[in-house]
Amino acid sequence: MTITITAFERSPDGGKGLARDTRVRWALEEVGQPYEVRLVSFRAMKEPAHLALHPFGQIPTYEEGDLALFETGAIVFHIAERHAGLLPDNANARARAITWMFAALNTVEPPILELVTAKILEGDKPWTAERMPLLKDRVRARLGPLSVRLGDAEWLEGAFSAGDLMMVSVLLRLRASGILDEYPNLAAYVARGEARPAYKRAFDAQLAVNTR
Amino acid sequence: MTITITAFERSPDGGKGLARDTRVRWALEEVGQPYEVRLVSFRAMKEPAHLALHPFGQIPTYEEGDLALFETGAIVFHIAERHAGLLPDNANARARAITWMFAALNTVEPPILELVTAKILEGDKPWTAERMPLLKDRVRARLGPLSVRLGDAEWLEGAFSAGDLMMVSVLLRLRASGILDEYPNLAAYVARGEARPAYKRAFDAQLAVNTR
Repeated sequence: MTITITAFERSPDGGKGLARDTRVRWALEEVGQPYEVRLVSFRAMKEPAHLALHPFGQIPTYEEGDLALFETGAIVFHIAERHAGLLPDNANARARAITWMFAALNTVEPPILELVTAKILEGDKPWTAERMPLLKDRVRARLGPLSVRLGDAEWLEGAFSAGDLMMVSVLLRLRASGILDEYPNLAAYVARGEARPAYKRAFDAQLAVNTR
Repeated sequence: MTITITAFERSPDGGKGLARDTRVRWALEEVGQPYEVRLVSFRAMKEPAHLALHPFGQIPTYEEGDLALFETGAIVFHIAERHAGLLPDNANARARAITWMFAALNTVEPPILELVTAKILEGDKPWTAERMPLLKDRVRARLGPLSVRLGDAEWLEGAFSAGDLMMVSVLLRLRASGILDEYPNLAAYVARGEARPAYKRAFDAQLAVNTR
């Protein structure tokens, strides 16, 4: 069955790979599943046809036969569950990999998103400059423990998994802030993620959309 | 095998049920699994023994034989996957229920958490009062579409699932703000969640800890 995902017709980041379709593309590349992409404009995202797929009017979505999913974490998990390559076979190791997916999305990403969107959402406010150090410290409160836990391991739990895919994707948002470089082992971890052939193919595919 | 979770020795909310162990207790009650609770102090949460279980030094954790998990979403998913009652059998319906779990944690909860923690984290700052309307609008930007999608349905996708458990838990954080009442169908949805016998047992159990 054909897999079809949606992506921005024109990504706000201009193709830096930070739009969330990159995470889904990466997962599909890791498991070797071909996919098609339907590009949607900002206007189309808020229209009934797209809202029927994605109640919050965002991208990406995922369609495969009569299954329609939204929410990046759920899509990546679905891919990981159906195809070999993103979750270990051992039940306990699998549960640990899934734990890191949720940790990436619910513990690590929220303060990162707050930091990177502060300038967009409140850039015109007089308090934004003064708030930035507070926001950065909240990010550090997550990166410090994560750095300790990773130590000198290559990936978070044994082999590369959907947990690493999600954590690397979340940390990539920090590159422009410079905070990642305060944690050399996390910076190297992110670089290992980016060096994976599947990530490169996913990145190149989204870049091609945004430079066409 | 005995299931042991961790919870605050003394919850910051004094037993309102907003600490995340309530979500895990609720899931365990829904599937009828007995569990034990190990209470941890704020100091113990940051010590090596607990950090080995939870790298970010939080609660809850979940131990069952040689499996140790952290991160509420992952724990609830693990419970839902192993025991009947929280995920539908049909594969597509199951994937949709999981989608709502991720949507609750990564799309709906972050702006809610930002709103409810602003007074705690930045209550002493001169800008906090002026920021509150912005934060509330960001919450509304999630609740509006969620309210539309729920419509007059009882639960998000057919029967009650782990997706509803997580969404109701996330929305419960809003009660004190009054925002939930702007969306009567969401307020009724949350009330339906609270009315479930399993929720009541979970709530009472965490309350007993905090009023002992």
